[in-house]
Amino acid sequence: MGNFKGHALPGTFFFILGIWWTTKCILKYAFKKHKRTSYLDSKVLFHRVEILEGIIIAGMALTGMLGEQFIPGGPHLTLYDYKEGQWVQLLGWHHFTMYFFFGLLGVTNILCSTIRSLPASFTKLMLANALFVEGFVFYNHTHGREMLDIFVHKLLVLVIFLTGLIAFLELFILTNITVELLRISFFLLQGSWFWQIGFVLYPPSGGPAWDLVDHDNVMFLTICFCWHYAIAIIIIGAIYAFVTWKSFA
Amino acid sequence: MGNFKGHALPGTFFFILGIWWTTKCILKYAFKKHKRTSYLDSKVLFHRVEILEGIIIAGMALTGMLGEQFIPGGPHLTLYDYKEGQWVQLLGWHHFTMYFFFGLLGVTNILCSTIRSLPASFTKLMLANALFVEGFVFYNHTHGREMLDIFVHKLLVLVIFLTGLIAFLELFILTNITVELLRISFFLLQGSWFWQIGFVLYPPSGGPAWDLVDHDNVMFLTICFCWHYAIAIIIIGAIYAFVTWKSFA
Amino acid sequence: MGNFKGHALPGTFFFILGIWWTTKCILKYAFKKHKRTSYLDSKVLFHRVEILEGIIIAGMALTGMLGEQFIPGGPHLTLYDYKEGQWVQLLGWHHFTMYFFFGLLGVTNILCSTIRSLPASFTKLMLANALFVEGFVFYNHTHGREMLDIFVHKLLVLVIFLTGLIAFLELFILTNITVELLRISFFLLQGSWFWQIGFVLYPPSGGPAWDLVDHDNVMFLTICFCWHYAIAIIIIGAIYAFVTWKSFA
Amino acid sequence: MGNFKGHALPGTFFFILGIWWTTKCILKYAFKKHKRTSYLDSKVLFHRVEILEGIIIAGMALTGMLGEQFIPGGPHLTLYDYKEGQWVQLLGWHHFTMYFFFGLLGVTNILCSTIRSLPASFTKLMLANALFVEGFVFYNHTHGREMLDIFVHKLLVLVIFLTGLIAFLELFILTNITVELLRISFFLLQGSWFWQIGFVLYPPSGGPAWDLVDHDNVMFLTICFCWHYAIAIIIIGAIYAFVTWKSFA
Repeated sequence: MGNFKGHALPGTFFFILGIWWTTKCILKYAFKKHKRTSYLDSKVLFHRVEILEGIIIAGMALTGMLGEQFIPGGPHLTLYDYKEGQWVQLLGWHHFTMYFFFGLLGVTNILCSTIRSLPASFTKLMLANALFVEGFVFYNHTHGREMLDIFVHKLLVLVIFLTGLIAFLELFILTNITVELLRISFFLLQGSWFWQIGFVLYPPSGGPAWDLVDHDNVMFLTICFCWHYAIAIIIIGAIYAFVTWKSFA
Repeated sequence: MGNFKGHALPGTFFFILGIWWTTKCILKYAFKKHKRTSYLDSKVLFHRVEILEGIIIAGMALTGMLGEQFIPGGPHLTLYDYKEGQWVQLLGWHHFTMYFFFGLLGVTNILCSTIRSLPASFTKLMLANALFVEGFVFYNHTHGREMLDIFVHKLLVLVIFLTGLIAFLELFILTNITVELLRISFFLLQGSWFWQIGFVLYPPSGGPAWDLVDHDNVMFLTICFCWHYAIAIIIIGAIYAFVTWKSFA
Repeated sequence: MGNFKGHALPGTFFFILGIWWTTKCILKYAFKKHKRTSYLDSKVLFHRVEILEGIIIAGMALTGMLGEQFIPGGPHLTLYDYKEGQWVQLLGWHHFTMYFFFGLLGVTNILCSTIRSLPASFTKLMLANALFVEGFVFYNHTHGREMLDIFVHKLLVLVIFLTGLIAFLELFILTNITVELLRISFFLLQGSWFWQIGFVLYPPSGGPAWDLVDHDNVMFLTICFCWHYAIAIIIIGAIYAFVTWKSFA
Repeated sequence: MGNFKGHALPGTFFFILGIWWTTKCILKYAFKKHKRTSYLDSKVLFHRVEILEGIIIAGMALTGMLGEQFIPGGPHLTLYDYKEGQWVQLLGWHHFTMYFFFGLLGVTNILCSTIRSLPASFTKLMLANALFVEGFVFYNHTHGREMLDIFVHKLLVLVIFLTGLIAFLELFILTNITVELLRISFFLLQGSWFWQIGFVLYPPSGGPAWDLVDHDNVMFLTICFCWHYAIAIIIIGAIYAFVTWKSFA
């Protein structure tokens, strides 16, 4: 992952997932509020969509896991090099672990959508787990790096942890559209922040690299993080307006 | 904002907002409890008041944003000075960002009051967001300053974070007057604490400046913070007594 | 407060308050469960008891406030010594502030018990406020002291904060006897821990003083804190058994 | 406890307890969902099982307490050595304290199962208490040790604290199977992590000891912790599948 692409890819995935969840969440709310029977039975539709969602998440996670292991120079499933007496590519294994938990989320999503007796909240539980594991791994990920590198990853951990916290709280209390959209807005933020990290640490333009020990950059990235969030909110607002307009036009 | 006025203005705004919300909250409670129909239909009244509130908040935020940008010596919407190779007036942009999120709160307030299909809790969500962003920015705001300067801003972050936390919890659980008044008391505290920061860092009397590295000042400001809160509670109590007495006299 | 008595007095007060609340809480639970009409109408009884409780708390707080100010060598309501150019007895003012908030709790308790239109949860709110203020002041109370001194006060802050947290959560969610007893058990712990602090910092026996920089003492006080809590639990259990046995014998 | 066995024993106990609770929890859910009357009246069965559970937990705790005190070289109930002027075996007393609180949990479990008037949530309360005490003691347990030793114990504290937090939240809000399984999964994690600590600090194979100051080991144990959790989740999933299949075959 130590390059621009390695940050842009998960960023894009989280962003698209966020956009998709926003649409689904608002559609569900609109259908529920107006009790309108669309030409497709919405329940069956949403059910199939859940399965598809699970398959895509599991598939993406599997791709990520295989990619981390078998890229040229990857660990190729070796964990410990007995010759050298040291661990092999631990950062790669870190990413592998995070993908694995998102894979579990995907599998749970599929199982909960196909087997009726399973409580639906298992999916939410696995989502919280996947996010907490992601946050936990990233928290222990940046040992010995430069200040700015640590700072951008800390903000990443912050947004991941907040997303997980909301998913966790949703286990206890009946969810509503506001809380759900809040959680999704953090997903969008995570996605676009991955891009930002890519731009800061591995500028793709070939332009001048960021000074990793200049505290002014920390001051700027603080507000940049907020602007990313503002954009996430505006995107959700736009989707809300569009979906509501389209489905009741 | 690096002067007395720059702290007194937002302080006054938050304080007046807090006073206003206290009155509204207690009036609502009194009307609800006694099911009394006043000469004005209270529902319609409160509805119009909400819109007015949104307009005022959005207006104040816009004023703040423009002020930060176009005061003499402000950044004038320039973010990066390519000649000097450095960021332009990041602290001004910090304030700009905070105002922007309060602007979003104002806009949401207006939209939720005019469009029926929008969930009312969106306003609460944007309030929590605006407060968390404010706290987050202030938390990263005081790099390299003196001990006392950092301490008074830390207390500011504390009260902002607590206010945001309560607004956040209100998303999950049905709100009641006690929780609402608690949240508002923190608003009053924030408002008067802004004044206190102004007095500590930029004494308007021209009297002797505070010693920024004397730990005794930290010890005093600790209890001073509590006294501000005591005053906030007493003010709310007085408004409660006055409103209840007036509306049932 | 810088002596054994100064810690034993509030400790005794909190402990007795805890014992009293335990009895009241269990009696209420027993009456409610068995719907038994005792020879005294329990509702009226509990109501009067609440007022009495408020008067005692307010009285104790007032005594504490006056004591802190007018003991020989106390600040006598002077806050700043303009001659010396320094604050007068800030630690005394710290204690004064804490007592003041418990005074507010007492006053609220009286008001909520006498005025019907006031929500009963105001008392809970003022309790949470008094505890958070107490924790906040103690947190900033021990600057520049020895390790063990700081450690015992940190544990005090921990238990105060936990008590406040539970009182705060009770604002949001319907309380039950388990949660209430948990909160009260922390009150007992706070009371007995005040005694422990007195014994550690100002041994009344005149025996050898504790070594304030020996880490073994920290290790011991860690488990000592847990033993205090175990005793609090056992006391509550004993009261539970006694009250249940007495009221249904 | 300063050897492999001392970590393997509690680990095994927590793990078996976790497996047992998983089975019980899923069986209860299955019985409730399908309202099936098995050949044994399930309510009476579960009731007796609760008592048995309490006896086993209390017995194990008592064994642990006696073991800590009377092993060769143990403190034999001596707390302070007046000759040497120092505490006797504080780490042993630390373990003793933790066992004591689990003993209280066992006793409460028995009492709540046999005495009807006791609220059932007392057991949950004592579970939270036992876990918070365990976490609190472990947090203050590793003073002056090597980096890796502290790190593995920090992760232990993390999982213990999370388990306690969930048990605490269950006091406030009606529990459901998802939350319960989450709590149990943390128990399994705690159990297997005890084993991992044993392997890291006291390798039973006699193989090369782990380098306690190598940061790569921290990086590995970070993901190792997640893998333990993944295994806990997979075990719960397998038990879920097996129990559901068996009870409806």
